[in-house]
Amino acid sequence: MDSRQLLVDTMGELMWERGYADTSPRNVRERSGVGQGSMYHHFPTKRDLALAALERNVADLLPAASELDGPGAPMARIEAYLMRPRDALKGCKVGRMTQDPQVREDPVLLAPVARAFAQVHVSWVKALREAIAAGELRDDLDPEHLAHTLMAVLQGGYVLAIAQQDPGPFDGARAGVLDLLRAAAPSVPNHENNRRNRTP
Amino acid sequence: MDSRQLLVDTMGELMWERGYADTSPRNVRERSGVGQGSMYHHFPTKRDLALAALERNVADLLPAASELDGPGAPMARIEAYLMRPRDALKGCKVGRMTQDPQVREDPVLLAPVARAFAQVHVSWVKALREAIAAGELRDDLDPEHLAHTLMAVLQGGYVLAIAQQDPGPFDGARAGVLDLLRAAAPSVPNHENNRRNRTP
Repeated sequence: MDSRQLLVDTMGELMWERGYADTSPRNVRERSGVGQGSMYHHFPTKRDLALAALERNVADLLPAASELDGPGAPMARIEAYLMRPRDALKGCKVGRMTQDPQVREDPVLLAPVARAFAQVHVSWVKALREAIAAGELRDDLDPEHLAHTLMAVLQGGYVLAIAQQDPGPFDGARAGVLDLLRAAAPSVPNHENNRRNRTP
Repeated sequence: MDSRQLLVDTMGELMWERGYADTSPRNVRERSGVGQGSMYHHFPTKRDLALAALERNVADLLPAASELDGPGAPMARIEAYLMRPRDALKGCKVGRMTQDPQVREDPVLLAPVARAFAQVHVSWVKALREAIAAGELRDDLDPEHLAHTLMAVLQGGYVLAIAQQDPGPFDGARAGVLDLLRAAAPSVPNHENNRRNRTP
């Protein structure tokens, strides 16, 4: 691996573990083994390196969210994405950047985080619309709101789990919202209506 | 106000705004106007001051959550607590401490955060149980899980709002979960069953 990539990966890990404010260029050099000269050649400032590391962490997050767009019944995809194994005590490598004052007060550093969340929201809305169209969810629910709800359950679940140093609240939060989604199945399936409507 | 209280209040504000790692004793002295001698008399270390400030921030959070225990129909209390005005872009003064690596790796500093969340969870569970008993929510829902879900929606809503620098995702997340709660009203009211059961 070249030293540039090694620096970016190391900074990405350290920002996830310790945040931006608490990670020094020295920490990055010590963990990566890359020398000071090479570091400043690739990244004149800590902020330059952080921006590259954020883009890298976002690139890790987005393919996972694309599972929402995969094949299969929409609710099955929604459930699979919601319930897939996650390290609750480590939290989200993108979401936790919002808590770092030096990141959230810097529009350039915050931009990749905002972009990533907007993109995941689009995937959620699409899957939820498909679930409504397939008669798996009541059609009086707002998929835009619900997408925020489901993203918030995951992001907030991390906060609760870290506070208790226990993955239980994270798992409880997503089990609870899954039960609510199941309770929000329509009493008369929409696809029955659609099928009836399509019958000549 | 005495200098001790002024130090605690100032540290509480700075930890909310900037986190623990990023707040120096000097920042606290400059904002509070309390001198170095007095500061070290009351709080020999930054950690001592942080612990007092955390306890203070927790004491601010808990009375709000006690609204959940108030009079009135349980779902009306749940809705009022969920929807009351909150500064989405500032986030939760207790929850955001979980994102500070120096707090989350320090069991002493994390303890008041864990205790506060556990206490709020108890209030949520109680209100949700009452909503189920009153026939406002289906009785196959798990109030322990659902309490984590609702806490996560708020904590995660802050994360989304800060990422976008827009309170919209916070408000969307809570509107979405409120719609799900309403969709999870039982088709046959439980209290009707209870009343029938009590009839001699």
